Amino acid sequence: MSLSSVANQATGSSLPPLNIAMVGHAFMGRAHGNAYRQANRFFDLPRAVVPYVVVGRDQERAEAAAQKLGFLRATTDLDAVLADPDVHVVDVATPNDSHHAIAMAALRAKKHVLCEKPLAMTLAQAKEMAALAKKQKVRVGLWHNYRRAPAVAQAAKMIARGDLGAIRQVRAVYLQDWLADASVPASWRTSRKACGSGAHGDLNAHLVDLTRALTGLQFESVCGVQQTFTRQRPDGRGGMAKVDVDDAFLFLARFQGGAIGSYEATRVAQGRKNHNCLEISGEKGSIRWNLERMNELEVFLVDEPRDAQGFRTVICMDSVHPYAANWWPDGHIVGYEHTFVHHVADFVRALHDGSAFAPNFDDGVAVQAVLDAALQSAKDGGFVKVPR
Amino acid sequence: MSLSSVANQATGSSLPPLNIAMVGHAFMGRAHGNAYRQANRFFDLPRAVVPYVVVGRDQERAEAAAQKLGFLRATTDLDAVLADPDVHVVDVATPNDSHHAIAMAALRAKKHVLCEKPLAMTLAQAKEMAALAKKQKVRVGLWHNYRRAPAVAQAAKMIARGDLGAIRQVRAVYLQDWLADASVPASWRTSRKACGSGAHGDLNAHLVDLTRALTGLQFESVCGVQQTFTRQRPDGRGGMAKVDVDDAFLFLARFQGGAIGSYEATRVAQGRKNHNCLEISGEKGSIRWNLERMNELEVFLVDEPRDAQGFRTVICMDSVHPYAANWWPDGHIVGYEHTFVHHVADFVRALHDGSAFAPNFDDGVAVQAVLDAALQSAKDGGFVKVPR
Amino acid sequence: MSLSSVANQATGSSLPPLNIAMVGHAFMGRAHGNAYRQANRFFDLPRAVVPYVVVGRDQERAEAAAQKLGFLRATTDLDAVLADPDVHVVDVATPNDSHHAIAMAALRAKKHVLCEKPLAMTLAQAKEMAALAKKQKVRVGLWHNYRRAPAVAQAAKMIARGDLGAIRQVRAVYLQDWLADASVPASWRTSRKACGSGAHGDLNAHLVDLTRALTGLQFESVCGVQQTFTRQRPDGRGGMAKVDVDDAFLFLARFQGGAIGSYEATRVAQGRKNHNCLEISGEKGSIRWNLERMNELEVFLVDEPRDAQGFRTVICMDSVHPYAANWWPDGHIVGYEHTFVHHVADFVRALHDGSAFAPNFDDGVAVQAVLDAALQSAKDGGFVKVPR
Amino acid sequence: MSLSSVANQATGSSLPPLNIAMVGHAFMGRAHGNAYRQANRFFDLPRAVVPYVVVGRDQERAEAAAQKLGFLRATTDLDAVLADPDVHVVDVATPNDSHHAIAMAALRAKKHVLCEKPLAMTLAQAKEMAALAKKQKVRVGLWHNYRRAPAVAQAAKMIARGDLGAIRQVRAVYLQDWLADASVPASWRTSRKACGSGAHGDLNAHLVDLTRALTGLQFESVCGVQQTFTRQRPDGRGGMAKVDVDDAFLFLARFQGGAIGSYEATRVAQGRKNHNCLEISGEKGSIRWNLERMNELEVFLVDEPRDAQGFRTVICMDSVHPYAANWWPDGHIVGYEHTFVHHVADFVRALHDGSAFAPNFDDGVAVQAVLDAALQSAKDGGFVKVPR
Repeated sequence: MSLSSVANQATGSSLPPLNIAMVGHAFMGRAHGNAYRQANRFFDLPRAVVPYVVVGRDQERAEAAAQKLGFLRATTDLDAVLADPDVHVVDVATPNDSHHAIAMAALRAKKHVLCEKPLAMTLAQAKEMAALAKKQKVRVGLWHNYRRAPAVAQAAKMIARGDLGAIRQVRAVYLQDWLADASVPASWRTSRKACGSGAHGDLNAHLVDLTRALTGLQFESVCGVQQTFTRQRPDGRGGMAKVDVDDAFLFLARFQGGAIGSYEATRVAQGRKNHNCLEISGEKGSIRWNLERMNELEVFLVDEPRDAQGFRTVICMDSVHPYAANWWPDGHIVGYEHTFVHHVADFVRALHDGSAFAPNFDDGVAVQAVLDAALQSAKDGGFVKVPR
Repeated sequence: MSLSSVANQATGSSLPPLNIAMVGHAFMGRAHGNAYRQANRFFDLPRAVVPYVVVGRDQERAEAAAQKLGFLRATTDLDAVLADPDVHVVDVATPNDSHHAIAMAALRAKKHVLCEKPLAMTLAQAKEMAALAKKQKVRVGLWHNYRRAPAVAQAAKMIARGDLGAIRQVRAVYLQDWLADASVPASWRTSRKACGSGAHGDLNAHLVDLTRALTGLQFESVCGVQQTFTRQRPDGRGGMAKVDVDDAFLFLARFQGGAIGSYEATRVAQGRKNHNCLEISGEKGSIRWNLERMNELEVFLVDEPRDAQGFRTVICMDSVHPYAANWWPDGHIVGYEHTFVHHVADFVRALHDGSAFAPNFDDGVAVQAVLDAALQSAKDGGFVKVPR
Repeated sequence: MSLSSVANQATGSSLPPLNIAMVGHAFMGRAHGNAYRQANRFFDLPRAVVPYVVVGRDQERAEAAAQKLGFLRATTDLDAVLADPDVHVVDVATPNDSHHAIAMAALRAKKHVLCEKPLAMTLAQAKEMAALAKKQKVRVGLWHNYRRAPAVAQAAKMIARGDLGAIRQVRAVYLQDWLADASVPASWRTSRKACGSGAHGDLNAHLVDLTRALTGLQFESVCGVQQTFTRQRPDGRGGMAKVDVDDAFLFLARFQGGAIGSYEATRVAQGRKNHNCLEISGEKGSIRWNLERMNELEVFLVDEPRDAQGFRTVICMDSVHPYAANWWPDGHIVGYEHTFVHHVADFVRALHDGSAFAPNFDDGVAVQAVLDAALQSAKDGGFVKVPR
Repeated sequence: MSLSSVANQATGSSLPPLNIAMVGHAFMGRAHGNAYRQANRFFDLPRAVVPYVVVGRDQERAEAAAQKLGFLRATTDLDAVLADPDVHVVDVATPNDSHHAIAMAALRAKKHVLCEKPLAMTLAQAKEMAALAKKQKVRVGLWHNYRRAPAVAQAAKMIARGDLGAIRQVRAVYLQDWLADASVPASWRTSRKACGSGAHGDLNAHLVDLTRALTGLQFESVCGVQQTFTRQRPDGRGGMAKVDVDDAFLFLARFQGGAIGSYEATRVAQGRKNHNCLEISGEKGSIRWNLERMNELEVFLVDEPRDAQGFRTVICMDSVHPYAANWWPDGHIVGYEHTFVHHVADFVRALHDGSAFAPNFDDGVAVQAVLDAALQSAKDGGFVKVPR
C-alpha cells in the first residue's frame, strides 16, 4: 500500500492526490511537513495531500528529513523534481536569499508554488515572481501563516462585517529577545547578505501582512528608524562577525484614507519571547491580538450598554470560530503549527475550486514595497512614499 | 512500502515497531490517533509507533475512522485483535462504562494497556484492574494527559525541587459552561448509568490527578456538595430525559500531613469554557496554572528582593522547559493535543527502558478512591475518609 | 472659625452638622477619619460631617490621633461623650472584643452607631445589638466597606436588574500571605480571645457580606475545614506565643433555592496580598471581581453574538458607574479608602431622608450566623444549618 | 481655632504653616486642593500645608470652590494675592494658555510656584519661566504627577540601581477614547489657540516626562505624524466648531547614546479610557506600567533561573515600596489623586531641606523641546533635532 493511497483514505476522495515537493527542510520545513501530514486528518479536503519529495543540498540530510517529516523520498536534484509531472506543488522553504531563484524555476516549470516569507530580497524580484505566476496561470501562496490563527481569522471577519467601523489606527509590535544577550552568536539571520535586514524583514513583514489581511488598508507612506545594539557577535569559530542588520526597527505609517499606524520589530526586548501583537482601533470598536495567547481575541464594541463596556477576551476556539470546529471541543486551544495546517487546507480547496487564495505573490509584493520604503526612510530620515 | 516501515523511517530505529490497537474512535480516539501519528515525528523514540488497528462496533464507521486517523485497518472483532501477537498495546478509548471489561480482557491477553480516564466505574473495578496489570507484568497507562502540558510538567519539577517549600493549600477548579443552557440535550454524559457521575467524574478526576502529580500529597478525607440545576433535558426524540448526574460538584479535602484543599467541577459556569485551573501555595512560593492558557505558568517565589516580588508569567515554551525543545522556537505555543503526544512518547520510552510510567492504574485507583469518597460525602453531608 | 463651620462651608447646607465620635484610632480609625474628612468634599450631602471627637484609652495618643486625623478634640471619657447631646454618631473602631460593649452603650445613649466588622464575638451578642438598635429607633451601619467599591456596586446593580439571571454558584476567596512566614510575631489577630477566629472572622466575613449584598442569597447550611500551619509565633518578648486561631479556613455553602458556593480565607497563600475575589455564575452570565484590581469588573453575558462572547473587563470609573462621577474623569481609578468615603456619604443621606441603609446590624447578625455555623461545622466535620 | 492651626496640629510642627494660593479651581483644582488637604494627614511633614486662598475670575464661583475644596477664602484679585506676604506658594491650575503669564507674575513676586503641565505654550515661554525661577531663587514644581505613582517611583528606583542594565528601547502609549464619537462637542481642548495641540500636548507630555524621569535618557531627534479624524464638532450653540488640533499624534525618538523609542497619544482609541502605558527594555530586564492598573508594575529580570523567567506583576503597595507605607496595609491600593498628594509632600520636604525637586521648570523646558520638535517634524515629514 502506497502512502498516497493511505493519504487518499483520509479524504475518501476519488481525485488524484496532490504531491508536494518541499525545497529546504530546516525549521520551516518541519512546520510545513507537519501541515502536509495533518491537513487531511483534520479537514475534509477534495484531494489528498501527499508529502512527496524533500529537496536538499545534501542527500543524507535530506533523506533523514524526509524520513522524519513523512515524505516519500529525498533528492538533491531540483531540476529533476521540476521536470517530474507527478509533482504538483513546489514549496520553497529555504533561506531568504534563494526564494526568488527557486520559485522562478518552479513557476517556469508550471508548478503551483508555496513560498516562505519574505517573498524575495528586493521589490523588483518580488514583482518578477508575481508577474510570472500570473503569466503561467499557476496558483501561488505565501506562508504568512498568522493570518490563519483562528483568532486572527475571527478578527478579520469582524472587521469585514463592520463591527469596528472604519479603521483609524493600527499599533503593531513584534517583540522578541533572543538577541538581547551580546554573547549570542552571529548567524545567517544577522547577515544582511543572507536575509536583507534583521528584525525588520523577519518580524515587521508579519505585521505588515497582518495589517493588510485584517484591515484592507493600503500603506501610503512610512518613516522608520533602526538600531543595531550589538555590532559584532561570536562567529562560532573563535572570532567575531560583524552584525550588519537591525536589532530593532520602528516605523510610522500613513494609510490611504487617513488612518495611521505604528510598527515595531525587535529582537532585544527582554522578556518578550514571541510577542506579535496588534491593536486596531476603529470608529466603533477595537481588537487586540497577541501571538503568545494566539487563541484569544480582545474585542471592544461601543454598541453596548455604557456601564457594561470593556475589552472582552474571546477564546476563539468555539465551534463558531474559523477552523475551530475541525479540532477539539470548545475551549481546547491549538498552537503555532496549526496555522500552517490551515494554510494548506485552504490552499488545497482554492486549488480545487478555483477560488482566490491569499496571501499570494501580489500580497508579497505589497509587503515588500512597504518594507523597502521603510528601509529607505530609515536611511533618509523622513517619510517615504510606498510604491504601488 | 508499508506504513509500519514508514513509521520506522521516522525513528531510524532497528527495533520492531510498536503496534497499537485502539478500541473506540470518537472524540478521544481522534486525540489518541493524532498522538500515535505524531510521536515519532517530534520525538526521537527507541521504537516506531504504528497506529495498527481500530476496533469499533460498526465495521463501516470503524473503517472510516481508521482511514481518517491513519490506522492500517479496522475491525469489530476485539477477540481477534487480542489474540493477534502483532498487537502490542491496547488503547481503551471507549465510553466510561466499558473501560473495565475491555481493559481486563486486554490484560488477560498480556497486552500493554493505555486506558482513558476514568479507569473504571467503581473503586472495586479499578483495584481489580490494577492488580491484574501487576500480575500480568505488562505496562499500563491512564490518559490523564494534562500532566504533560509543558507548564504542568515544569510546575511539577519546581515543586519537586523544593522551590515552593512544603505545600499547604491547593485550590482547584475545572469550570465549563456547556450545560448552562437548559435546552442543551441529554447525552451519555448526563446519565449516571453511562458515566457514574457528571462534572465530578469528568472534571474533578483531572483535578485530583493533577494534585497528586504536582504535589505528591495523599488525600486523607473529603467533604462534598453537588447540585443538578437542570433536572431534565430534551432527549432528542421530542421528549425529555431525566438528568441524574451533577451539574456541579464541590468538595473540600484534608491531606495527610496537614495540607488542605478545595475542588470544584462545574458545567454551568457561564463564560468558562475550559477553565481547568489550579493554584498551589507552599511555604516559600505558589504556582497557578490554567488550561485555557496552558503554556503559561504563574509563579511566585518569596526568595526574591521584597520590592520585586510578584507572580510572574512563565511562558513554558523555552527550550529549557519540558517537551518544549521538541516543538518550535521559544515562545511558539502548543495546544491541547500535544499533551497526548507527550504521553505516547513517554510511554514508549518507559516501555523500552523499563522505567516507571505515571499515571498508571495505581494512580487510577487513587483517583477513584477520592472521587468515590467525595460522592459518598455528598450523600452523607460530612467528611469521609479516603480509603488507601 | 470653627471646623464645623468649615465643614458646613463644604456642603452649603443650612442643617446642623453631623458630629462624629470615633472610639478607637488605630488602622481602622485612619480609614474612618479620612472618610469623615472627605465625604463632604466629593459628595453633595444634606449635612456636613464633622470629625468631632476621638475616644481613646490614653489621652496623649488619642490627642495625637485627633490632630493627625482632623478631629476637633480627644478624650478618654466615653461616658461623657455618650452623654454629650452634640455627639450624633458613635463610630466603634476598636478591636473586635469590645464592639459589643461600646455599641450597646452608644445605643442605650440613643446615638446612631457605625460599627466596625465583625459586629460582635458571638451570634447572641450580635442579635442583642440588632434588637437594641431597633428598639432605640436609631440608625446603624456596619463597616463592610467593600460593598461600596464602584465595581462591586456596579455588579450588584447588574445582578439586581437580572443581567446574570438566577444565581447558581458563588466562588469566593480572600487570600493573603502575611502569616506565611513562621517568624512573623503573634498579635491580637492570632489570639482567639481577642478576635474569635483568624482568617475566618477577618476575611470570610467580607466574603459572606459581599455574597449577600451582591446576590441576595440566603445561606442555608455550611461545612468547613480549617488549619493552623504555624502553631506558635514569637511573642515579641523573647518567647513564643501559642496561635489558637486558623491560618486558613475553607467552607462550602448551600443556599436557599439551590445555589451552592465555596469560600476560602487564608493568610498563608504566598504571593497573594489582598486577593479578595468573587466569581458569581448565573443562568445568563457571570461576574468576577478582585479587590487588588478593585476598579475593574469582569463580566460575561451570554446574550451576545456567539462568536464575540467573552469575559470583558469593565473599568468601573466611567461617569455612568456608581460613585464614579464624584471623583475623577473616566478611567482615573480610586483606591481602598474611597469605599469608606462612600459608606459615610450614603449613611448621611440615609440618615437625612430616612431611607434604608445597609449593611446594618441585621446584616451583621446574618454574617455572624454563617461564620458561627462554619466554625461549628469545622469542629463537627459535617454540614451545619445556618440559623435564621 | 483657625484652619492653619488645625493644619499644624496634623504635623506637630512648630514651623509656620505653608500657605497655598491656587489660581484656577476646575478639574485640576479639585485634585490639587485634595492634595493640600491630605498631605499632612498621611505624611509627617516639617511644615503644615494650608489651602489658603483660591483665585478665580468670578468671585461667587471661586468662593464655592474654596468652600468645597477646603480653602480659607477666595478672591479674584491675583495682584493682591501676589502682594500678600503670607502667601508662600502659588499654584497655577488654569488652562494652558495662561500658565506663562500667571507663573511669571508669581515668580516676579518671589513666590514659590507649582505649575500645571504643560509649563507653557511655546518653548521660548518655557525657557523664560525657567530662567526667572532660577534668578528669583524660588522653588518651582511642575505637576507631572504620574512620576509619583508608587509603581512608577519603584520602577525609577529599579532602573537607577541598574536592575535593567542600559536602557535600549522605550515604547510608550497614552490611549483614550473620549473623542472617538464625532458627536462629542468641541471644547478648549480641541482648540489650538487654547492649548497648542490636542492629544500631543495633553498626553504625549506625560509620556515624555515619564521617559525622562524613569530612564534619564535625553531625546536627540524625533519624527512624528498626526491626524484629526473629526474635523468639526458641535459648538454647543447649534453650530459646528472647527477642530484644529490632533486627535492622535505618534512619534519616533532617537535618544543620545543610541536608544530608540516610540510614542503615541490618542483620544480616539475605542475602549481605552486612560491607558497611559510604558514598556522599557534594557540589556538585563524590562518593566511595563499602565496607569489603569497604576499600583502594579510588571518586571522582567534576566538574572533568574532560565526556566522560571517571566514578567512578574509586582503590586507596589507593600510597605517597602515608595509612598506605600504612608497609606494602607500591604495590597490595599491607592488611586489617581494620591500622586498629587505625594507631589505636595515631596515639595514641602524639598522646600524645607533645600534638596532638589523634580519635575521643575527645567524639566518642563525639556519636555516642551521634545513636543515642539515633534510638532515641527509632523509638518516637515522627517526627523527633527530636539534643541538642548
